[in-house]
Amino acid sequence: MGPHPAVAAIRLAVRRVLHDVITEHQAAHPAAHPQQPHRPGQQPPLVLVACSGGADSMALASALAFEARKLAVRAGGITVDHGLQEGSALRAAEVCVRMTALGLDPVESVAVTVGREGGPEAAARDARYAALDAAADRYGAAAVLLGHTRDDQAETVLLGLARGSGIRSLSGMAAVSGADGRYRRPFLQLDRQTVRKACVAQELAVWDDPHNTDPAYTRSRLRHEGLPALEKALGKGVVEALARTAQLSRDDADALDTWAADAEAAVRDETGFLECAKLFGLPPAVRRRVLRRAVIAEGAPAGSLFARHIEEVDRLITGWRGQGAINLPGRVEARRQGGRLVIRQG
Amino acid sequence: MGPHPAVAAIRLAVRRVLHDVITEHQAAHPAAHPQQPHRPGQQPPLVLVACSGGADSMALASALAFEARKLAVRAGGITVDHGLQEGSALRAAEVCVRMTALGLDPVESVAVTVGREGGPEAAARDARYAALDAAADRYGAAAVLLGHTRDDQAETVLLGLARGSGIRSLSGMAAVSGADGRYRRPFLQLDRQTVRKACVAQELAVWDDPHNTDPAYTRSRLRHEGLPALEKALGKGVVEALARTAQLSRDDADALDTWAADAEAAVRDETGFLECAKLFGLPPAVRRRVLRRAVIAEGAPAGSLFARHIEEVDRLITGWRGQGAINLPGRVEARRQGGRLVIRQG
Repeated sequence: MGPHPAVAAIRLAVRRVLHDVITEHQAAHPAAHPQQPHRPGQQPPLVLVACSGGADSMALASALAFEARKLAVRAGGITVDHGLQEGSALRAAEVCVRMTALGLDPVESVAVTVGREGGPEAAARDARYAALDAAADRYGAAAVLLGHTRDDQAETVLLGLARGSGIRSLSGMAAVSGADGRYRRPFLQLDRQTVRKACVAQELAVWDDPHNTDPAYTRSRLRHEGLPALEKALGKGVVEALARTAQLSRDDADALDTWAADAEAAVRDETGFLECAKLFGLPPAVRRRVLRRAVIAEGAPAGSLFARHIEEVDRLITGWRGQGAINLPGRVEARRQGGRLVIRQG
Repeated sequence: MGPHPAVAAIRLAVRRVLHDVITEHQAAHPAAHPQQPHRPGQQPPLVLVACSGGADSMALASALAFEARKLAVRAGGITVDHGLQEGSALRAAEVCVRMTALGLDPVESVAVTVGREGGPEAAARDARYAALDAAADRYGAAAVLLGHTRDDQAETVLLGLARGSGIRSLSGMAAVSGADGRYRRPFLQLDRQTVRKACVAQELAVWDDPHNTDPAYTRSRLRHEGLPALEKALGKGVVEALARTAQLSRDDADALDTWAADAEAAVRDETGFLECAKLFGLPPAVRRRVLRRAVIAEGAPAGSLFARHIEEVDRLITGWRGQGAINLPGRVEARRQGGRLVIRQG
């Protein structure tokens, strides 16, 4: 008798990602003898799982441990102690015990200090990724697996939608991201229910993060109130539709970014200034991206640059009636001067 | 004392659109003598309002009547009797009385028969636009104004999101649409509350369509449950963010469609077949649009062609392992043959 269908599903998802990691590792570290893919002294690649002890990442840890035994991969686990809750260190130690019991090695708990930048969720995320990056570097890991599911993706798309800043913010999380494609999300196409079922089927003890149900957190409100209400209004396929929107939006945003990079080179004159007449000839979607790139290149911080800023700069091209310089974040200003767009940091 | 700010807002929105309509009308019908913009026998353009008697379209009718008196525009109104509710003919007659009282002329009630194609909302919409098109043709109207607000736009974006079919379906309603840009939506940037306040301030009697609060209708569920829950989770700016997403997505989709049209010509060989190697070199977002165009050109009905169909055709390019012909809606099939993609109706 084979494994429970949910367990088979999570293992298959992890297996696919491990195959990619192994293939890329071999391409980057060609063996001297093809018949002997791992030379003496050269170890198989290490894949780490980022594990909070919650259901999604415990399922991921279990599938990684299982699949790694069958493939030329070493499997370890990292848990991040955010220090935000009473007893978090103890819990992190417990998660390490559970990861070790699954057969992962090395296993480590990393304590971080969460700042305040960008709100509690963003600050915790920043601290977590910094710790995971450091751990991956320390261990020389080829990849770090993250347990985000299709439901997390749907929530991320809605959070991006609430910013109203265009299709890049609708594109959610990438299946592969980070430096050198370090982070991999094997469960991004799997629904949360399947992953949870895989925990039950394997009798994995999991920990429920109280933050996940705390209505003080936007994502928690979205998960427990916003998304269910949207499903009630629009039907059951909403989560899947949001996840598909993420993928399509990501591809669209990538293509338009490529176009904008090419277009930017073509609309600059020989001294490097942007020519207004050439900008005017671009499709609005491309022109706004060119302007955004140019403003960021002069020192405006991307995170503080909103659609309304770029629209104002765009009106120097499309609605020119002698307006003065536009002030932008990072003390950057844009002005129109003799048919050129001059963007400079003051 | 000027008008109530809400009344000023709706009038300004209509005035802007009327200016566009007048400018375009003059460009299309140049006067023999510039000093005499309307030659004897040539009337100023007629602008119709589509009015259900509800708050949004009554506010629009009032603003059109007011602004038309100050501009070289004739203003009339059409109300569509969908025949779906008891007494709908009587109500349509009442709406005509109210439009006449506002000073609109001509005013007409048009009865339609609503079919079943695509569900009750789509069928009613199709019948309504067919009637408006016919009325506009009959009267030789230069434009038909529609009362959709920013809130309607936000709902439309969420409905598109639920389809999960990409950024074109996130782009909502256009400010200008239809044959020759006939339909105009002056209130697309105004929130519903402002428009409703303008009705109260002008003591306009308005009719509440029971469909708008009937939970059998998806849009009604979205309006009264889905969107409020989303606002509660994500904050008050959601409607505005969705409307902005619509505009950005529309521009992005337009730019990518342009790219795909250009790319399609470039990837065809001298006999008109699509070359797989050239398709492979395109960004995925552009390639999928080229494939969609090509499949529709061979007779597949656009409305039945889903993202998953195009993904399957795309795998003939990106994941070629000898698969057979792909069957598509409209008896169209796609197969790979000697490095070419052959798309044909069977």
